[in-house]
Amino acid sequence: MQVALLGCGVVGEAVARQLVDRSAEFEARVGARLQIIGAAVRDVDKPRPDSGLSSDLFTTDSMGLVAKADIVVELMGGLEPARELLLHAMSQGASVVTANKLLLGEDGPTLYDAAERAGVDFYYEASAGAGFPLLRPLQVNLAGDEVHRVVGIVNGTTNFILDKMDRTGADLADVLAEAQALGYAEADPTADVEGYDARAKAAILASLAFHTRVSTRDVHCEGIMSITAQDIAAARKIGCVIKLLAICERVDTPSGAEINVRVHPALVAKSHPLASVHDAFNAVFVETALAGELMFYGKGAGGDATASSVLGDVVQAARHRVHGGRGPGESSYAAMPLQGIGAAVTSYSIRLDVVDRPGVLAQVASVFGAQGVSIESMRQGVARSDTGSATLHLVTQQAADAALSRTVELLRVHDDVTAVTSVLRVEGA
Amino acid sequence: MQVALLGCGVVGEAVARQLVDRSAEFEARVGARLQIIGAAVRDVDKPRPDSGLSSDLFTTDSMGLVAKADIVVELMGGLEPARELLLHAMSQGASVVTANKLLLGEDGPTLYDAAERAGVDFYYEASAGAGFPLLRPLQVNLAGDEVHRVVGIVNGTTNFILDKMDRTGADLADVLAEAQALGYAEADPTADVEGYDARAKAAILASLAFHTRVSTRDVHCEGIMSITAQDIAAARKIGCVIKLLAICERVDTPSGAEINVRVHPALVAKSHPLASVHDAFNAVFVETALAGELMFYGKGAGGDATASSVLGDVVQAARHRVHGGRGPGESSYAAMPLQGIGAAVTSYSIRLDVVDRPGVLAQVASVFGAQGVSIESMRQGVARSDTGSATLHLVTQQAADAALSRTVELLRVHDDVTAVTSVLRVEGA
Repeated sequence: MQVALLGCGVVGEAVARQLVDRSAEFEARVGARLQIIGAAVRDVDKPRPDSGLSSDLFTTDSMGLVAKADIVVELMGGLEPARELLLHAMSQGASVVTANKLLLGEDGPTLYDAAERAGVDFYYEASAGAGFPLLRPLQVNLAGDEVHRVVGIVNGTTNFILDKMDRTGADLADVLAEAQALGYAEADPTADVEGYDARAKAAILASLAFHTRVSTRDVHCEGIMSITAQDIAAARKIGCVIKLLAICERVDTPSGAEINVRVHPALVAKSHPLASVHDAFNAVFVETALAGELMFYGKGAGGDATASSVLGDVVQAARHRVHGGRGPGESSYAAMPLQGIGAAVTSYSIRLDVVDRPGVLAQVASVFGAQGVSIESMRQGVARSDTGSATLHLVTQQAADAALSRTVELLRVHDDVTAVTSVLRVEGA
Repeated sequence: MQVALLGCGVVGEAVARQLVDRSAEFEARVGARLQIIGAAVRDVDKPRPDSGLSSDLFTTDSMGLVAKADIVVELMGGLEPARELLLHAMSQGASVVTANKLLLGEDGPTLYDAAERAGVDFYYEASAGAGFPLLRPLQVNLAGDEVHRVVGIVNGTTNFILDKMDRTGADLADVLAEAQALGYAEADPTADVEGYDARAKAAILASLAFHTRVSTRDVHCEGIMSITAQDIAAARKIGCVIKLLAICERVDTPSGAEINVRVHPALVAKSHPLASVHDAFNAVFVETALAGELMFYGKGAGGDATASSVLGDVVQAARHRVHGGRGPGESSYAAMPLQGIGAAVTSYSIRLDVVDRPGVLAQVASVFGAQGVSIESMRQGVARSDTGSATLHLVTQQAADAALSRTVELLRVHDDVTAVTSVLRVEGA
């Protein structure tokens, strides 16, 4: 069984090392020997001692390598040339394993269709919840159930940052710098902190959960850059932590089931299982019609952890090549319509500076009432005699995001409101 | 696709109802129509309205039913006639789905071999962690990893009882009676409270985790009947809860890897994720070489939840019959030797009544020292002037269970020890 690696960074080296060092074990599990025939890299001269591969296996000729492989493992990331190489691999009859969430989120259907036409396995377990079983359980174990909701912490970098802010009270900028120094965040952290990584994963999860094509473009996305130490402190005061969540939900409407997929920071009550997910760990909470509530927890990144999922896919693809059969392909029969963020039913945590005079609270409350938004709780801070203002922290009951958003717009221009200092959603309120 | 049900209790009714009510959905997911051709039951006249099946589908002729089926779903439980029926089904070329942990734990290999010979799928996801993905993730997702340890709460009844004792301070007998009244415990609770149910699941989990045949007979098993309200209170005082755990561990010895599989109650620190598993929920914590720590959480019982796993298996088996292929069979190539409980490395929580006089502590400590057991912590209770005795609560460091057990035997006959009131293991100390 000829295995080709595309890319040989941290994950690629870990995958190669395992296939080399534990070849007898893999042979016993698969029923055939797995042989790495090469690794396509940009710089063949860069030493990669951790891979266990002899230097003559490195090549820049990725197309040539793909042409000879039974199983192609793509760990280079990015849209191109990854897409072109994988399509070529499938057209040649190779099975494909990838961890490329960006490509799947952007253009999954092109790859699903190509795999279907070629009749090959196309696995991507490591593209979300990199180091723990998540996609195959959703796709196979829950194939007889009906998923209602998937709520997950699917980005380790942002969870590390928010968790550290919660534990230390530090500002985001300082914690981000520390995360970069520790290797938990990239030099350019945009993809993580702006939520783009989580957005791609949300698209993948929603596609599998709802048997519907969902792409990155369909996912409303807000990152964590505006989260302040004051937001975290205010959340703590009402028994919550702030997490960046990927939320995929099925909404039953009079005209049928629709879905809403979004990524944003949210307040989560400390009693919720997701609140206890610390450091760079990930966890995904799933609600279904039959199984009820279930959760998957593990590492969301890291060379070895990601390699675990990649190697599981490689073994499964290899078993199929030995024993016949194929994993389930894309299922998009349900084709549920996608809602915009405005239709999402959620609740808001809003912090305001208001003019400190009698009757202000009634004025503010009437703004909510006029939009049909009920107030769940209100905390008034200490009034400041120097500015003549007071702080308010309101949490609403659930309402359509559009109504909540209109309420905030009206508060921003209200005479009694000096400033809207923070607007965050609340999950599981 | 002809589906036969063997048994139509709570789970069987839920499975039937879903296949009937959501037939279009199942057809879209499988690529063929799933048709229930009958349900074998003991009493055909008993009304089963929740099943959605017409009364003429019920039969006592289980052998006749099996002969006509493509997929046989066995939910009757027990060793016979389940075993005979499943062997017959496989020999006829039918795929088999079961939730029968007792049969799998006792005699799994007979069934694995029969499935292999017949070339049919044999799935049993619901036999452990009934309502959440667990076995397929272990068997497929982690097929490229190396599992070091599986520690799980796999019995909902005992978790309900222990959790309730912890929350209320009540005695086991009272909580057990309540659990029976609520339907969380059977009229004859033996299989749950003596740990037999967890033992069968431990055997199944260890077999998959370690690619080794492990049967119920190989699993050391202690139940919860001796756990007292005092044990729970003493555990709380040192920041622990008591859980019934199934522990499957790989132990690397100079002569190679061995495995140790056991079920017993244990103190678990409140900071451990398993400590937060409440009510009748289950959770399984897995440690692997590559993925590190991961956890699966969900319902361990219940009609709908179990049906979710059973239906996932049915869909997977049906897909294979439509599209070709087969799930991975038993993998027992590793054949690691099984250790006895004496070799397990663990730590003990021991509560003693001792004579209240100077020098007693040194005497007691020397008993541990002589067996090479170190003491991790010690709490002395208030001395009672009426009996002249004092209580001690000791927690040891890790040591071989045999040495710990010898220490306890020596304490029981020690002149300064009035009584050994409690001996429990501590997990993750």
